[in-house]
Amino acid sequence: MDKNEIASWFQGLQDEICAGLEMLDGTATFEEDRWERAGGGGGRTRIIQGDNIEKGGVNFSAVHGTLSPSLAKALQVDDSDFFATGVSIVLHPSNPMVPIIHMNVRYFETSDNNWWFGGGIDVTPHYVFESDAQFFHHHLKSVCDAHHPDYYHLHKNWADDYFYIKHRNETRGIGGIFFDKLQGSSEQKRPLFAYVQDVGQSFLPIYSKLFTTHVSDPFSDQQKEWQLIRRGRYVEFNLVWDRGTKFGLDTDGRTESILMSLPKDARWLYNHTPAEGSQEAKTLSYLKKGIDWTV
Amino acid sequence: MDKNEIASWFQGLQDEICAGLEMLDGTATFEEDRWERAGGGGGRTRIIQGDNIEKGGVNFSAVHGTLSPSLAKALQVDDSDFFATGVSIVLHPSNPMVPIIHMNVRYFETSDNNWWFGGGIDVTPHYVFESDAQFFHHHLKSVCDAHHPDYYHLHKNWADDYFYIKHRNETRGIGGIFFDKLQGSSEQKRPLFAYVQDVGQSFLPIYSKLFTTHVSDPFSDQQKEWQLIRRGRYVEFNLVWDRGTKFGLDTDGRTESILMSLPKDARWLYNHTPAEGSQEAKTLSYLKKGIDWTV
Repeated sequence: MDKNEIASWFQGLQDEICAGLEMLDGTATFEEDRWERAGGGGGRTRIIQGDNIEKGGVNFSAVHGTLSPSLAKALQVDDSDFFATGVSIVLHPSNPMVPIIHMNVRYFETSDNNWWFGGGIDVTPHYVFESDAQFFHHHLKSVCDAHHPDYYHLHKNWADDYFYIKHRNETRGIGGIFFDKLQGSSEQKRPLFAYVQDVGQSFLPIYSKLFTTHVSDPFSDQQKEWQLIRRGRYVEFNLVWDRGTKFGLDTDGRTESILMSLPKDARWLYNHTPAEGSQEAKTLSYLKKGIDWTV
Repeated sequence: MDKNEIASWFQGLQDEICAGLEMLDGTATFEEDRWERAGGGGGRTRIIQGDNIEKGGVNFSAVHGTLSPSLAKALQVDDSDFFATGVSIVLHPSNPMVPIIHMNVRYFETSDNNWWFGGGIDVTPHYVFESDAQFFHHHLKSVCDAHHPDYYHLHKNWADDYFYIKHRNETRGIGGIFFDKLQGSSEQKRPLFAYVQDVGQSFLPIYSKLFTTHVSDPFSDQQKEWQLIRRGRYVEFNLVWDRGTKFGLDTDGRTESILMSLPKDARWLYNHTPAEGSQEAKTLSYLKKGIDWTV
């Protein structure tokens, strides 16, 4: 199985997900920007701005070139040529009862035979509904369990640690799974890819369920403002802590493709604290590590 | 001249600036949060949310304690006790024709006799007016020239380099002055403090002029949207590149005081590009290093 097979499967996943999301939104289609990287390769950035998915991006890229010494050091590999491909998604819905979702699957290899997979999927509700969180984590657990009995436990905890806004002492949302540098012998490559494929293909059924459950929920102006405040936290995580974003911006990645993850609108109110016992306070109480949603 | 004299002068500056800004806004007063730092010291965070100054903060702090080894390394001093005091201001006006402004003056010393001053003032117009930029830089140059013939040149260039959004290849605004680690012999301490004092006291006359010139300017919905987009860039600079913000968030500073710099509302539109020949495009053309506004 070579890198082109993986890249080509990722491209197909992008197509499949974009088609599914256009049906879900029902009002808009994706616009595509194809771009090339000066050092080699390029990508297809696809953006949707609809009535229901207010702003969303589904990006594919496959880039290659020579690792700079600093990059090689950061990745803990020898200086060499590299190839990297992946699909990245962030969707910001209009309705505050629909959560923000993020998914990423990626593959990396160097010319001296290092290779690994990474990926993850996590959900950031503006309002936490316990039944949604349970559905989401149960679904992820079944995806993980089909590949390795430890994956859900390990990759769920990894997500709790990764999607953490340290300066707020809050997780970004209700977590999900996150994994990086999944590697092994050459016989393990296809099974690892199969896991990554199943994670990628879990995206549409998961988001369809969360989206259709809430897309027609009524909401107030005050709930819309809370959504803007939570989006502010999403911006804080992505710009301050997200290693993928920092890596992209530091290495002259295509800024508009990287920052498609930011919402259309966000708000910061000084020292905003929800009223005790409110739905907003309840949501904050769930933004912590170590909650087991599968029991 | 000891640290308490400096801290006490900074406190007075905060009072003076808050009183001046309340008069300028004319609709709101500052609310104050006094806070204490677990390791020693504390501050007075003051926030105004008025009709004309939509969101602004004028913060004073004076903190002390023991430097962690990593902090001592970052500051290039030996492990020791430290004292740090300063005033930080960011104002986001309602009217897009009024610029965002930032000012900071600060003093740092260690128990083994290292001490230095830092500071700066810079302006981020949503729309660049050449006459405003000329007034601003001429005023700064006269403040600098009264202290050292090289200060304006050196500290203006330092601001161009510091207030730079690398991933956008844009400066944050039209610059200003920035300086750090101004130090010297004990005889040089008072003259350096005098420079910092003059920078601090230049804030009110500078902002009063820029504010009153434009606070009644008419503006369209489209110009208001451009303001939101430019605020998005301000958020990007502060969260991705600003060393002061990163330092504060990394060292468990008071998050709400640090992030008072963020605007109430910001917007991100995918790949937004102003029309050729528009006022917005003209503004972008001025967001680069090395423009001499004093000629």
